[in-house]
Parts: sequence; C-alpha cells; structure tokens
Amino acid sequence: MMQIDVLTLFPRMFEGPLGESIIGKAREKDLLTINVHNFRDYSDNKHHTVDDYPYGGGAGMLLKVQPIFDNLKAIEAENPGQKKRVILLDPAGKPFDQKLAEEFAKEEQLVFICGHYEGYDERIRDLVTDEVSLGDYVLTGGELGAMVMIDATVRLLPEVLGNDTSAQTDSYSTGLLEHPQYTRPADFNGQKVPEVLLNGNHKLIEAWRLKESLRRTYTRRPDLLENFPLTKEMQKMLAEIQAETDAANEAQQS
Amino acid sequence: MMQIDVLTLFPRMFEGPLGESIIGKAREKDLLTINVHNFRDYSDNKHHTVDDYPYGGGAGMLLKVQPIFDNLKAIEAENPGQKKRVILLDPAGKPFDQKLAEEFAKEEQLVFICGHYEGYDERIRDLVTDEVSLGDYVLTGGELGAMVMIDATVRLLPEVLGNDTSAQTDSYSTGLLEHPQYTRPADFNGQKVPEVLLNGNHKLIEAWRLKESLRRTYTRRPDLLENFPLTKEMQKMLAEIQAETDAANEAQQS
Repeated sequence: MMQIDVLTLFPRMFEGPLGESIIGKAREKDLLTINVHNFRDYSDNKHHTVDDYPYGGGAGMLLKVQPIFDNLKAIEAENPGQKKRVILLDPAGKPFDQKLAEEFAKEEQLVFICGHYEGYDERIRDLVTDEVSLGDYVLTGGELGAMVMIDATVRLLPEVLGNDTSAQTDSYSTGLLEHPQYTRPADFNGQKVPEVLLNGNHKLIEAWRLKESLRRTYTRRPDLLENFPLTKEMQKMLAEIQAETDAANEAQQS
Repeated sequence: MMQIDVLTLFPRMFEGPLGESIIGKAREKDLLTINVHNFRDYSDNKHHTVDDYPYGGGAGMLLKVQPIFDNLKAIEAENPGQKKRVILLDPAGKPFDQKLAEEFAKEEQLVFICGHYEGYDERIRDLVTDEVSLGDYVLTGGELGAMVMIDATVRLLPEVLGNDTSAQTDSYSTGLLEHPQYTRPADFNGQKVPEVLLNGNHKLIEAWRLKESLRRTYTRRPDLLENFPLTKEMQKMLAEIQAETDAANEAQQS
C-alpha cells in the first residue's frame, strides 16, 4: 500500500478532491493512505507563525524552514528509514510529466510540501529529494499541484483503475494523441459518426484510428513525433496526411 | 465581475479548493462568481446516463454530446450573447501556460468542461472555443485541470491579490526563475543566510538577486533564456555564471 503525506496550510482544500472518484475509491479499497498535515501545528513560535519577512527586503512573506523541518521529522519518526520521495511544489522545479508520475507510482511513500505566499526559505530545498513544477504558469499555492501529481500517480497503481489496459492506452502513454471517438447517437443535429466506425470491419477501424491519431498529433503536437519510433505503416500514413494537409491548405488559399 | 461555470460529474470535488485561500476570498469580495454544474442533470435519458460505448469498439466509455450540449444551452440562456470562452480540458489540447491564463483573465465569462472516463464524443469539440491540456501527463478527469486554470486565472484579476505587484514579480511573469530567498533565523542548524542579504546594501542585494535568478534559470531551465531579452548587465552576469559553472564542473572531475 502506498502512503502519501501532504504538508499544507490549507488542509480543507484536499477534502473534496481526495475523497471523490478514483482516488476516493482507491482509499476505500485500502490501496492508498493519504495523511494531510497542517504544518502550522509544528511551528515552535507561540503565535504559530509559519512565515516571515525576506532578508534583504522585498514584497511578500516567505515560509520559514523550522515548521516544515519538524513536520518532516515527525513523519520520518513514524516509519524510520522508510524509502520515500519528498517533493517540493515549486515553479522553479523540474516540470512534472508522465515519466515522473510513473517513477512516483513505484515508491512506497511520497511526501508533498505545498508552499503558499511569495516563496520558500532556500534551506527548505535541502530537505527534499525533488523540486517539481506543474507547468509554466503561476498558482496561488502548491496544493492543486500536489493534487494533480497525486491523481496522475495513483491512477497508475495496480488495481486502482478497474480496467488494467486503460492506464496504458491513453494519450501520453502511447506517445500519440488519441484519435477521434464517437458514441451514440449516430446522428446528432446533423453531425454524423464516420461511416468506417459503423461498418464493423475491425481492420479498417484500426487503420482509421491509427491514421487519425497520427493526424491529430501531426497537426497539434508535432513535437511529440520528433523522437517517436514510426513503423513503416505509420510513415506511409504520415506521408498521406502531409499530402492531404497541403492539398487542404492550397484549396483554402485559392 | 468574472463569471466562471464548470461542467462536471463530480461537483463535490470543487468544494474545498474553490472555497479556500485566494479564490475563496475573491468570491467573498464579489470579484468572482463560480457555478458548478453537474451535467448529469441535463441527460435526456431516463436513467440519467452521460456515457456510452464507443462506435467501432474498444475499452472504456465515452461522454455523450447531448447532456453537455443542453447544459451549455442553459448557461447561454442565462446571459444571451455574452462573450465567453468555452474550454474543454483534454490531453490533446493546447498546453496551458501563463500567456493563456492572462488571456482568460481578460474574459467576462469562462466555461470549463471536465471530462471523465475514456474520452469525449468528438462532436463535443465543436461546442467549445478552446481545447486545453494541463501538461504532458494523464489525469483521471478534467476537474483538477479546471481548478488549476481557475486558480492561475483568478489570481491575475485586479484586486484579487492583496499586493498588486505580487502577480507580476513571480517567476514566469518576469520570464526568469526566482532567486533564492531567506527568512529568519539567520542560522538554522548551521545553515546560514548569505552575508550579502544581511548587510543592507540594496544595490549589492539587487545585483546578487538578479545574478542568482539568472543562475537558477541557466542551470534548471535554459530553454527559458532562449528568447529572453538580456540586458548588457545580464549578459555579463551570464558569462560569469558560465565560467563559474565550468570551473565547478572541472573541480568535480579532477
């Protein structure tokens, strides 16, 4: 069973997201324990402060190192010597991606430290194994980032998703974007499902899906194709897609 | 006042995150209205189903177009003709970044559609203005993605952050990663705050901060420097940093 600890000043933020849907079910099935800690409880200051002014001046407050240091020590004391990753959510960290989620999913224990305010005392970075950023955007705190990383990680744990194949066939797992998909009705306000999907010929359906998956990736995220191991069939499809795109562009211009 | 509507099958997930911290305060101050809709309520099926099997076969279920179509129609009927962005959370979408958050912050109304299950009926894409992905990782649903985008957007609204300058001086807003920061104590278990920050010379402090900001960006995210408009001072600092890094690497190897 995986154990996840979260250090935050806003423990209530986690109540909805970690109780519902797939994470909620994983906790019910005892595949996962999540402990949310308010590190304010570890402040050795009588006013329970967790932040202070930056040395050298400047706007905003910084998180102090002491409450986080002591909260981590308490977590360590529960399972002395247990292998764990301690993850600091920080915009200057390594960008989070599927590969990191796969690494996290192999660990016994993950500890997430969620910042708030303007930033961290630099010495907090010495307490962690990973500094990770959710993406190239600024958030008011690390809480949502921790939830996203927990979600991406937990769904990879064995037995968490009902259908074992689902985790692997999703986009970013195959390396291509997903092909268009359709469900009933076959005609919605005049918008129809492509014929090929209705005729039941599985070979044709597979080929259509692969080609549309390549087309979507080529159009939207060509960067994903750069190091992609294309088979001969894929190379042929990609050449067709390029010719079709060129023809469509010319038709648009004339 | 900005209006945000969220379409989801898990409205309870939003209770904690959208009630706390800066978003909660923005709602209290009437700078923001958030309506969370369960689009299952709009299903025209007597069992209130929202998903169905994919045409052409395959694992998993797809979201049907009808409930989302009707929920969007109801939102449109409340403020007919109001300019809005309708955002589909999808791994095949455009990656979310700070620029997109800035665009969103200028809108009057944002509508987020959160998927779940294996995917969407393709015709749902025709109902939206934007398809956006949170990053190159797979999540169990779009809910956390919507929360992240709401957080990144709302903090940019005027009057939401107490200190107007904070939103602009953060990393990704200046284009560089933030320099190391320190708060009390000056000595924590032997780890000391750099002298320069304690001596009160503001010119030296500013120069140190800029150089360490450049160093962190150069070391961790050199891609951010590629199109960065470096001043002469920055170019000189960067040359020093490169020389210092080379010297440190050589010392390590010998």
